[in-house]
Amino acid sequence: MEYYVTPLQNLIEEFEKLPGIGRKTAQRLAYHVLNMPKERSEKLASSILEAKRKICYCEICQNLSEDKICAICSSPKRDRSVICVTESPKDVMQMERTHEFSGLYHVLHGAISPMDNIGPDDIKIKELMARISSGEVKEVIMATNPNLEGETTAMYISKLLKPFGIKVTRIAHGVPVGSELEYTDEVTLSKALKGRIEL
Amino acid sequence: MEYYVTPLQNLIEEFEKLPGIGRKTAQRLAYHVLNMPKERSEKLASSILEAKRKICYCEICQNLSEDKICAICSSPKRDRSVICVTESPKDVMQMERTHEFSGLYHVLHGAISPMDNIGPDDIKIKELMARISSGEVKEVIMATNPNLEGETTAMYISKLLKPFGIKVTRIAHGVPVGSELEYTDEVTLSKALKGRIEL
Repeated sequence: MEYYVTPLQNLIEEFEKLPGIGRKTAQRLAYHVLNMPKERSEKLASSILEAKRKICYCEICQNLSEDKICAICSSPKRDRSVICVTESPKDVMQMERTHEFSGLYHVLHGAISPMDNIGPDDIKIKELMARISSGEVKEVIMATNPNLEGETTAMYISKLLKPFGIKVTRIAHGVPVGSELEYTDEVTLSKALKGRIEL
Repeated sequence: MEYYVTPLQNLIEEFEKLPGIGRKTAQRLAYHVLNMPKERSEKLASSILEAKRKICYCEICQNLSEDKICAICSSPKRDRSVICVTESPKDVMQMERTHEFSGLYHVLHGAISPMDNIGPDDIKIKELMARISSGEVKEVIMATNPNLEGETTAMYISKLLKPFGIKVTRIAHGVPVGSELEYTDEVTLSKALKGRIEL
């Protein structure tokens, strides 16, 4: 005797497939869509389709881009001698938010993880090495995540780059600003201690 | 120097407008859409548009429906002598899930709330009264929410219905199944006590 309106049910199911969206949230979102003005819901639908259609990977840095070459890679203001290597496009966006980095990026689209069967050939390392051979690059900053996979990837790439005489650096580990020492884990704290700087 | 891919940014902003979706979740959803297969994203977009286009309100019970008259109102299996009154279509779905009710529904689309400037004329009470006049209805179950607005609405409608000689009932208040008395508030507990039944 259960009662469902099929298009509503379909919408709930589609929302439910998204990450972090459970049954209840999917329902709330679906009912919200039903109560939206028509133009709003059309804008939501079209922005999903447009994002999918218009965005590709930059041929140079592999970051998300609307054109073959992304805005950063084609900008004359960017310092071409430094490349910051990240695991995902999200990390690039996060780095850009600091307004502290004016070099180029390289997105690996993953990290080496033997547990998940992801080896060096499964991420964009070849593409990074191709960029290095131009000779323009002086420094590569490894900004992979501070976890096992990220560290492994950073170590692996730094070994590959050594023969080219390129400076390879790693972003600093330490206590996050605004946190409390009391709640900082030992590994982070010991890295913060080792990486101390003179005031 | 901040770097954005416009279609991605648009998508993040659209997701962010949804209820309960903050900046971070919107970003995660948007990146998830980018990584989806094309067909999946098209299905998500089309189900948003379809839900909006195909769903209207049932002319009788005001519940969501694909047709002028909804599946419940047009079903010959339903008991036409009982109407269960709810605040929203969600509540109908929830009631249907109990598989315990075989009558008809009436969705008010809100509750009387002087604080929010919602009076009896702003919700579908007129439509309910029109259904009553047919004389077929023997009982009206008030299943509005157990809060101030829901109670006020239930009281208001029961007073309107009295002159018609119709039995008006209210769903029971009490301790929810699976909860603990220790954490039940006093008002609920006193209602549970008053509404006790013989075993």
